[in-house]
Amino acid sequence: MNFSDIQQAHERIAPYIHRTPVLTSSSINAMAGCELHFKCENFQKIGAFKIRGGMNAALSLTAAELERGLATHSSGNHAQAIAYAARILGVKAYIVMPENSPSVKINAVKGYGAEVTFCAPNQVARESALREILDRTGAAFVHPYDDERVITGQATCAKELIEDAGPFDAVIAPVGGGGLMSGTCLATRALLPEARIYAGEPEGASDAWHSLRAGKVEKAPYVDTIADGLLTTLSERTFGIISSHVADVLLVSEDEIKAALRLVYERMKIVVEPSCVVPLAAILRNKPLFEGQKVGLILTGGNVDLGRLAQYY
Amino acid sequence: MNFSDIQQAHERIAPYIHRTPVLTSSSINAMAGCELHFKCENFQKIGAFKIRGGMNAALSLTAAELERGLATHSSGNHAQAIAYAARILGVKAYIVMPENSPSVKINAVKGYGAEVTFCAPNQVARESALREILDRTGAAFVHPYDDERVITGQATCAKELIEDAGPFDAVIAPVGGGGLMSGTCLATRALLPEARIYAGEPEGASDAWHSLRAGKVEKAPYVDTIADGLLTTLSERTFGIISSHVADVLLVSEDEIKAALRLVYERMKIVVEPSCVVPLAAILRNKPLFEGQKVGLILTGGNVDLGRLAQYY
Repeated sequence: MNFSDIQQAHERIAPYIHRTPVLTSSSINAMAGCELHFKCENFQKIGAFKIRGGMNAALSLTAAELERGLATHSSGNHAQAIAYAARILGVKAYIVMPENSPSVKINAVKGYGAEVTFCAPNQVARESALREILDRTGAAFVHPYDDERVITGQATCAKELIEDAGPFDAVIAPVGGGGLMSGTCLATRALLPEARIYAGEPEGASDAWHSLRAGKVEKAPYVDTIADGLLTTLSERTFGIISSHVADVLLVSEDEIKAALRLVYERMKIVVEPSCVVPLAAILRNKPLFEGQKVGLILTGGNVDLGRLAQYY
Repeated sequence: MNFSDIQQAHERIAPYIHRTPVLTSSSINAMAGCELHFKCENFQKIGAFKIRGGMNAALSLTAAELERGLATHSSGNHAQAIAYAARILGVKAYIVMPENSPSVKINAVKGYGAEVTFCAPNQVARESALREILDRTGAAFVHPYDDERVITGQATCAKELIEDAGPFDAVIAPVGGGGLMSGTCLATRALLPEARIYAGEPEGASDAWHSLRAGKVEKAPYVDTIADGLLTTLSERTFGIISSHVADVLLVSEDEIKAALRLVYERMKIVVEPSCVVPLAAILRNKPLFEGQKVGLILTGGNVDLGRLAQYY
């Protein structure tokens, strides 16, 4: 993957996505001691950046492949991205979801017209359900993050951020499975060779932090965080990209996530998911690293149940 | 008050306020059956449009008057507006607040450096506390809405909305004491002589609806609504302006307010106060009035306790 792949992805998906705004907050800047530029993917189609990768993967298929539909396993924003991309392109979407998924997410995916297959909430059941669908339908599988088409699609987010508000001294995004983070690394390194790149990660899902230190993919020692978009684990592919480019993975506690969430709601007046604010929490915990600098952050999405959110408040 | 007063107010306050964005939502348009343009004053300084009127009143004072400070009584966004205006202009602010005001609002006002005087939660105590302050300090009283300087300041909001996204077939704003609504009438009538102007009002604070029908200022038969920015009653001045210009006052129920609130959070991903969404609720209740039309709405502010909001969810 090189920058021309990202440029092509951007041209491919531009008609289907929003060029989301970059917002600033003088009061948050005053607290952080640096100049923060927030790329607001909560305003993106489907309410999250995931449509970039999903749409790029779909548009990279041949007409014959696309005609057989799209398939994935996900209980989160990637499921919505694939369902939405399929609807826009007029093909079928087959989504495998754990049977204990929240009904609000199931309804969102069904609302886009996708065919949902439920499975037991474990990896084996998920993969076998997906395999059965692929064999039966010939649909194209789009992995949530371990896929070059997805990574170059997600890279368009940092590309827009840098084009619209850069240059930056540092760029930071959250890391889960590493699709967005890998794309952020590739776009930032191409456009701003000198900028430092950071990943923000919850202490309660710290596989990237451990992997970076071990020099190989490692699991998190425990998984427990309200940042439910970041529960997944790096793949060899995303680990390879991220470990080559990031200055560090910065960990944050649950209380720091909640405090950052309150800040974004109260000061910026926008609706964001807990996963979103992990980079802001990381900056507030590591102020000397960013002091006086111009920093680009990606706010990844806004698909959150407000009733649940109030519990963190 | 004529349009040149509004233009002068706009020039006066422009250096101190945000020209807030006008957002649209294709999914809400599909539900409403018309094309809605939301003026997002939740992104305004202090989180609400009230800074427009407060700042215009402050900047209309002579240097000698201003030096003695600003005073008002309010437990809401107007208190923050006066406190913020005073801080920006380097003078003192004296705010009378009911002793049962939420601590979050008291802290916001104190955070801007204002001197807060508590009073018993009734009109007599409030006015006597204010009178004592005015006598002692010589500060300038800025009424929350019954003041031409405040009304022309609030009028700049509809002026921006029309300049940035107009023309419109109809313009709608919420009505409480009528400062914003009066300003909206004056600006809209000047810029769009043919446009229909509506006020949205909760059934549980329906003084404007009853006043319009009675042809004189009337109290609401009962007051009980989550739209806590709309509890106040029209003055003779605001009634005179509003009754001359609005096509109608459209009432909405509490359930309709809650449903509109959910829509704005889920579809637009922005944080707004319950009072904000009364116009949207009114449109959804009266779809035939707006069918196929282009409509400008004012979202008035975003100062809301999310914990409390979740109760409406």
